[in-house]
Amino acid sequence: MAEQKEATVTFGVLNETSDTESRVALTPDIVIRLGRNGVSCIIESGAGNAAEYTDEDYKAAGATVASRDEVINAADALGFIDRPSAQTIAKLKAGQWVIGMLGSFTDAAYVESLANAGLVGVAIEKLPRQLSSAQSMDEMTSQNSVMGYKAAITAANAYGSFLPMMTTAAGTIRPAKALVLGAGIAGLQTIGTLKRLGAVVTAYDVRPASKGEVESLGAKFLDLGLDFSKGQGEGGYARALTAEEQAQQQAAVDEKASGFDIVITTAKVPGRKPPVLLTKAGVDGLHRGAVIVDCAASDLGGNVEGSTVGEQVTEGGVKLIGAPYLASGVATTASNLLSRNVADVLTHFVRDGKLGMDLTEELDNALVVAGRVESEEKKEEK
Amino acid sequence: MAEQKEATVTFGVLNETSDTESRVALTPDIVIRLGRNGVSCIIESGAGNAAEYTDEDYKAAGATVASRDEVINAADALGFIDRPSAQTIAKLKAGQWVIGMLGSFTDAAYVESLANAGLVGVAIEKLPRQLSSAQSMDEMTSQNSVMGYKAAITAANAYGSFLPMMTTAAGTIRPAKALVLGAGIAGLQTIGTLKRLGAVVTAYDVRPASKGEVESLGAKFLDLGLDFSKGQGEGGYARALTAEEQAQQQAAVDEKASGFDIVITTAKVPGRKPPVLLTKAGVDGLHRGAVIVDCAASDLGGNVEGSTVGEQVTEGGVKLIGAPYLASGVATTASNLLSRNVADVLTHFVRDGKLGMDLTEELDNALVVAGRVESEEKKEEK
Repeated sequence: MAEQKEATVTFGVLNETSDTESRVALTPDIVIRLGRNGVSCIIESGAGNAAEYTDEDYKAAGATVASRDEVINAADALGFIDRPSAQTIAKLKAGQWVIGMLGSFTDAAYVESLANAGLVGVAIEKLPRQLSSAQSMDEMTSQNSVMGYKAAITAANAYGSFLPMMTTAAGTIRPAKALVLGAGIAGLQTIGTLKRLGAVVTAYDVRPASKGEVESLGAKFLDLGLDFSKGQGEGGYARALTAEEQAQQQAAVDEKASGFDIVITTAKVPGRKPPVLLTKAGVDGLHRGAVIVDCAASDLGGNVEGSTVGEQVTEGGVKLIGAPYLASGVATTASNLLSRNVADVLTHFVRDGKLGMDLTEELDNALVVAGRVESEEKKEEK
Repeated sequence: MAEQKEATVTFGVLNETSDTESRVALTPDIVIRLGRNGVSCIIESGAGNAAEYTDEDYKAAGATVASRDEVINAADALGFIDRPSAQTIAKLKAGQWVIGMLGSFTDAAYVESLANAGLVGVAIEKLPRQLSSAQSMDEMTSQNSVMGYKAAITAANAYGSFLPMMTTAAGTIRPAKALVLGAGIAGLQTIGTLKRLGAVVTAYDVRPASKGEVESLGAKFLDLGLDFSKGQGEGGYARALTAEEQAQQQAAVDEKASGFDIVITTAKVPGRKPPVLLTKAGVDGLHRGAVIVDCAASDLGGNVEGSTVGEQVTEGGVKLIGAPYLASGVATTASNLLSRNVADVLTHFVRDGKLGMDLTEELDNALVVAGRVESEEKKEEK
């Protein structure tokens, strides 16, 4: 307890639970960690229930459990899984900090609404991920990693056969063949989990660099039998493919997909229409009983043509699962990782016992999208 | 096709699909295999749909697809996942063979009803499993193996954290600790699948021999800290425990269970009340968010005190999943294995192009529970 600082900053977290959201932006162990950094926590009653963290757990860790209005009134900064609604913004007070995935890349009007309300908006999606000091704040990475794991478990649970090879007295069952489209953080985690379960895994990503990453996990990289290396761009960089080449590429993916039992697509792009990675022709080529998990399914469409949020069975008997809420399905761990990310962003901005920013710092300059104030020194210099 | 024999025996399979049953007792590849053994197949239309086998698949394999009544009329023998209902028995004709899990150990009245209808009842549950010729007929083993796999997947899907250890920039997530109670065929498969997923697995079974089997899979055997070896029975055999010792044993299991995140119980006993392996005290000792999968849940109770068929959350926040239909949840593979088992039983009884039995043979004597006829030679001898 010697490390405990006197708390001078109050961090508030609201209950964001809904039909599709079980996570919480603060977990009890992080309450303790924040306490060591001079931050006291106040959390809305019941906020952690769906993620298996009770009000009692928060109290035991030293947090105050209160009503929504009390949290809003007491907090110097509020942390969100996603971002506050317009209704919540209307209740916030000028000068309060809002930390979350604010959608600043696609929703300038939302950022303006924060600025107009006199709030300081810290947008985690703007994190300069190449900075090593930023890695523990990287909510995109932590949540995509959880999503990738759960995508594999979801496919295994929906598939009518084994993933591993099984040798029984009645004969041998061949292992499932799985195709992972999109080999970013989520895709790599999906590959790893499918391989744990004994599936034979192939993956594809349009980024040429992903081939090595896929192969390092022991999976095959999908060979499309196409060579677009001619006409490579300046300085050895890959040039953009022509529309015709892209069509060729898509047709090849669709055709190759027909040999697989499980297809998982992981190219989720928050706030934007996700790219189509498998067209209807690709879906129709799959065998009856094949399972598709589309992590990018949304009202704007998904990575799979025709996918919607929820489960459907196509005319050809393919189970198509549109699953945008996978990270929430592993709520306990997802919340814990998320909470560490948000708390590390918060403590980054705690200076001399209060919240402050220095826009000459790369991280501050990138993250603060609303309520930007130049440092006093800067002002004096002017 | 040179191997194809002229079919002289007709094997019929009905649609047993229900809300809780997706399996089918015949799959298309087995239609082909039976054809080579002089058996033609007739199957009720739609019987395989839920297991992803279409009428077209059966036709392509050489089976006749027909109505329920047509199948009942045409078949010399009928194969069942479970056993025919009284309603179906009423439609069957004297002399027909019925192959399935007939429940002969617990339901003598049912067996009598088969005999009274003039049917030949072949009870797969009576299989002498120690005979090597019986292994490919062992439906209990194949379906329990599928159940064990699916129990692990079900637990992974329900659990709010990762099963494997995960190291991320935001910290390390410890692997899940899983306890498997009952280490028979199903339990061993559960252990193997949980270990694939990266969980730390401990198991327990009252049979002392299971310790070595559990450890050979890389799992720990639960140490109850009790020694009942004193007063070992004659010739080194374990003696039965006294009631007091059993109570001590149960209390120790319940207490040890509290350290685990996942508990899976696998002691399913068809037709009988399953043994309790975890009492209410054990359930209440588990932490909020812990997951229990009770494979033995039934109307007669389950392996877990208070478990019912379906999902419930206890007052203490434990997810208790009563899951008696797990094999049906992997319907494609479960059906395929089951179909091989049933077909091998059938072909065992095909002699000189017709169905026959020789009760002097161990397998025949064990399996035929209704309509037993002594061989002609035997009769002549008398």
